[in-house]
Amino acid sequence: MKEDLIAKYPSPMPVATLRWEDDHLIIIDQRRLPEELVLMHLHTPEDAAYAIKTLAVRGAPAIGAAAAYGVCLAEPSAKTYMAACTTVNVRPTAVNLSWALRRMKAVVEKNPSATPEKLRSLLIHEANFIADEDKRRCRQMGIYGAELIRDGMTVHTHCNAGALATVDWGTALGVVFMAKAQGKNVQVIADETRPLLQGSRITAWECLQAGIPTTVICDDMAGLALKLGKSDIIIVGADRVAANGDFANKIGTYSLAILAKYHGIPFYTAAPASTIDVSKPDGNSIPIEERDPDEIAMGFGKRTAPLGADYWNPAFDVTPHELLSGIITEAGVVYPPFEDKLVKVVREFGFPEP
Amino acid sequence: MKEDLIAKYPSPMPVATLRWEDDHLIIIDQRRLPEELVLMHLHTPEDAAYAIKTLAVRGAPAIGAAAAYGVCLAEPSAKTYMAACTTVNVRPTAVNLSWALRRMKAVVEKNPSATPEKLRSLLIHEANFIADEDKRRCRQMGIYGAELIRDGMTVHTHCNAGALATVDWGTALGVVFMAKAQGKNVQVIADETRPLLQGSRITAWECLQAGIPTTVICDDMAGLALKLGKSDIIIVGADRVAANGDFANKIGTYSLAILAKYHGIPFYTAAPASTIDVSKPDGNSIPIEERDPDEIAMGFGKRTAPLGADYWNPAFDVTPHELLSGIITEAGVVYPPFEDKLVKVVREFGFPEP
Repeated sequence: MKEDLIAKYPSPMPVATLRWEDDHLIIIDQRRLPEELVLMHLHTPEDAAYAIKTLAVRGAPAIGAAAAYGVCLAEPSAKTYMAACTTVNVRPTAVNLSWALRRMKAVVEKNPSATPEKLRSLLIHEANFIADEDKRRCRQMGIYGAELIRDGMTVHTHCNAGALATVDWGTALGVVFMAKAQGKNVQVIADETRPLLQGSRITAWECLQAGIPTTVICDDMAGLALKLGKSDIIIVGADRVAANGDFANKIGTYSLAILAKYHGIPFYTAAPASTIDVSKPDGNSIPIEERDPDEIAMGFGKRTAPLGADYWNPAFDVTPHELLSGIITEAGVVYPPFEDKLVKVVREFGFPEP
Repeated sequence: MKEDLIAKYPSPMPVATLRWEDDHLIIIDQRRLPEELVLMHLHTPEDAAYAIKTLAVRGAPAIGAAAAYGVCLAEPSAKTYMAACTTVNVRPTAVNLSWALRRMKAVVEKNPSATPEKLRSLLIHEANFIADEDKRRCRQMGIYGAELIRDGMTVHTHCNAGALATVDWGTALGVVFMAKAQGKNVQVIADETRPLLQGSRITAWECLQAGIPTTVICDDMAGLALKLGKSDIIIVGADRVAANGDFANKIGTYSLAILAKYHGIPFYTAAPASTIDVSKPDGNSIPIEERDPDEIAMGFGKRTAPLGADYWNPAFDVTPHELLSGIITEAGVVYPPFEDKLVKVVREFGFPEP
């Protein structure tokens, strides 16, 4: 019998990123952190779409699970569930969202004669499966990734690939939580990650919950931090990994990878099989979301840049595989060349089609 | 007779960064931009020190001139003027500040028998000289630097090395203003430059005053911008250039220089002779100011990072000369190897000791 990793390694967070309760979905409204820990109750697919679109819930694995539960919020019928799959599909870059929705659609399609109530129960079961697998696989990735962390190390990260980017544990930050759970002394440097500051608002908050000393820096300080030897290893998340190892992640990841290469600092992404998209041969074909210019110009509730200027606000960038030391997965750490190995990870550890 | 560059190229800004009027100093309060254009009237050396310390006036050449005028604000006497030189000496990295104060002290020391009123008049004359030379030399740098700008180019910059970093024209951005004055089509990409957003608040505002189309990006978007070919050339300012060409500038300059090297984009600093410090053999001996953590954690009047986290807020970094394509000075553009050439620039174009 498999070891119960979820019970063995309880999440260091006070509440889960998202959880299904009776008939609706409860999420942490991540926009309010770190000032307030506020829960949001979602009752319709439109509520879920709004939460995903506005980044009340964000992070590739978390939006996959939130979208799956979001579908369950529709009035019970095959037609409304299929429509809900479109309603909640509001962000393009993370592969988990389309992947989770493909699974939910398959449940509807494979059960044409199920009653609406039975269908609802099957869909909730599928969403629970996605969420529980995420919890378990994050911990498994953490175990493999923590082998890279020696006692006393400082892990540098960008954006948030922690508990709040997943259902309750995290990918990149999950590695740090696991190192800590194993008794290692570990510290974090968190890039604040403009424009939406997921690093300072969310990563730093999570690390404090977990008792991990954390230093927040502005994104433009990363080069100097690496030069001065403040970071021993860089681990970031992934919104989508292409077959050759190129990967999309929060804007700024690419810059940080170049800085890491220049300074000889190991650079890893933590990417569960659910984020690996072997249908994309390389990073060029990953769609990159561009977001509202006001995230830059009015990012803090006040105008920080003049009216009349132009703004460019890509939410992600693609880091080419040449800049990667390795990819941390729930099948182990994958080293270059990536191509065949990633196909193997997906074949052996990817979710079976529903 | 020398061509009057100041008359030939009027500043594109509505008012000067700083100007002496009758008996006091008037500056633009740069903290209020871009929302409001507010003037601050400074009547004592303590007022000037406050304005410099809080970045109401900032930029190496501007704080040099502001400090010089700040000394003139003391009650007239040799003793109070010497004390004022200490009062206004509140930031360590830009060499212009200590350089301007050395000049002001020399005026006091060389005129031991001058009446207080005569001394005051000599000091105001010296401060005017520093300010006027800055205006003239910025335009001369612009003429040399503009030879690097071809019609249609996009100039990428970090922080603000424009009119508001000098008395009225700018160094790095002065090159862009000159290219525009010469009739070239030119655009700007401005890194917003966390933590204090001098790029989005000030550079973008200046470019709009000058009618130059400007795109603001977050600092962590620079790598992707360079990869996509959005920037043709990078020009930044300098707070202090060492003898070997290493230079201190706003935090993030070093990261941008590495990104430029990786993508093969030319990278220049615009540095008047007043910022070149040949007494420093290399960048290691340039003092780097660290500022208040709340610039990161409370940078926009609201808490963006949790209490309990640590912060590291270096205001500058040093870019090694290997990453520089050239240094734009009022003696021409200097190309590597820099060492002997920078000594020559200072010998031939540096200010004579007063």
